[in-house]
Amino acid sequence: MTVHPFDDAVALQWQSDGATGHWLGHTSAPYGNFVGPFGGISAAQMLNAVLLHPQRLGDPVSLTVNFCAAVANGEFFIHARPARTNRSTQHWLIEMMQAGEAVLTATAVTAIRRPTLGLHECAMPAVPPPEETPVKQRFAPMQWLKRYEMRFVRGGFPEPLNDADAGTSQTQVWLRDVLARPLDFASLASVSDAFFPRLFLRRARFVPVGTVSMTIYFHALAEQLVQVGSGYILGQAQGQHFQNGFFDQTAQLWSQSGEMLVTTHQIVYFKE
Amino acid sequence: MTVHPFDDAVALQWQSDGATGHWLGHTSAPYGNFVGPFGGISAAQMLNAVLLHPQRLGDPVSLTVNFCAAVANGEFFIHARPARTNRSTQHWLIEMMQAGEAVLTATAVTAIRRPTLGLHECAMPAVPPPEETPVKQRFAPMQWLKRYEMRFVRGGFPEPLNDADAGTSQTQVWLRDVLARPLDFASLASVSDAFFPRLFLRRARFVPVGTVSMTIYFHALAEQLVQVGSGYILGQAQGQHFQNGFFDQTAQLWSQSGEMLVTTHQIVYFKE
Repeated sequence: MTVHPFDDAVALQWQSDGATGHWLGHTSAPYGNFVGPFGGISAAQMLNAVLLHPQRLGDPVSLTVNFCAAVANGEFFIHARPARTNRSTQHWLIEMMQAGEAVLTATAVTAIRRPTLGLHECAMPAVPPPEETPVKQRFAPMQWLKRYEMRFVRGGFPEPLNDADAGTSQTQVWLRDVLARPLDFASLASVSDAFFPRLFLRRARFVPVGTVSMTIYFHALAEQLVQVGSGYILGQAQGQHFQNGFFDQTAQLWSQSGEMLVTTHQIVYFKE
Repeated sequence: MTVHPFDDAVALQWQSDGATGHWLGHTSAPYGNFVGPFGGISAAQMLNAVLLHPQRLGDPVSLTVNFCAAVANGEFFIHARPARTNRSTQHWLIEMMQAGEAVLTATAVTAIRRPTLGLHECAMPAVPPPEETPVKQRFAPMQWLKRYEMRFVRGGFPEPLNDADAGTSQTQVWLRDVLARPLDFASLASVSDAFFPRLFLRRARFVPVGTVSMTIYFHALAEQLVQVGSGYILGQAQGQHFQNGFFDQTAQLWSQSGEMLVTTHQIVYFKE
């Protein structure tokens, strides 16, 4: 059986001779970015160090990943430890190390969750279905972009790059793995970072950027992800403020049937 | 000179005999919540362990605080260490300990920031000025509420508590310290948590709730905070999704002159 490139990318080996909770992993060429790995795959690797951990309680509720330094191609170690375990919630501290230095830090909360009332306050926008939304081929050197099918309803890559202020940075896009794979918490963390930098869209120009910190709130239960399977999800992203070398982004992911899967936020460095 | 209760609440003593970077602090009765301390003051204490740290580089860009367990009244220790220091950014790991156990964990990013282009995409809503927005007195046992003047433009405390679905959980409120104090990064972190739980408003009922994780993105430079001084700031908060025992909240804080100070998010546990 062929291993899906995502499963290969997030695979971690428990180091029995390491201190408590060290995992060995490796960067993945198929999820490479312009420089170093795609941030989403790094987030998925950090989450997977919790998901695979024998002491884990429950499923992910929140994940914050801080991008401290460029992850170098090759091996890395992840140290994940439960800082606090309660009756139904658990708090994690996670670090990815290369050459003895932190390249990523993260915190996560997992919880045993039960179905409750559901109140939507950010409903899925009315958009044409994926079948009526064309895939636009666009040359880009980033390998990770080839892992996702993207059908932009609005706010695709800006053309031409004329440095005009578009007034909005909102994107709506249907997303799924090019190579079908059932959605799970790790792949949901990865696709939460699949929006190109909002400044590119708002100003129709490329500038050096890098996500500094990303937070993901998981709203769906594991069984809801099973229902999504390898189907499309709708992503929506928009910047709120761009100033003093940083901008933020707020985003949502829904299943095609309109269930909220994730709300996510990030703050991104940019250089003029 | 009398010490402002906020300054007393966030005061930390460096423990020269502690391991690297241990601070001693204490909970503050004036910022007490229904049980334990107000989450905002805990966030401010965690941030202050970075702000006061001799190795700090730059000003806050982001802060994520995870509420692991109830903070008991009395002393606590905060351990803050720079996990990575780059040329212009720095990544922090922070833990608050009581009785040898983590009660809060946090990560923060600080950076040397420079003014750049500013693009608003979430402008301050058009609302009446604070002078035309009455303060509504309401009995509540929480001490921290007495520290903030709140003038609700919309979405104040629901009355009656009739469990009706309001359809929206949006609040717009003018905020300032009752006892005047110039705004700084620590007090900005605190006031970022000054919104009562969105579920109370959406459903006009009280249920047990607790913030699990909160993230703050700081958009303003220190000199912009100086400009705000002890003036009013406008806060806006809204839930996006309530389900499976948790809901999220997204919020913004502007200066009265319309400058974006903070965008902030949190995920909150609730029990039906």
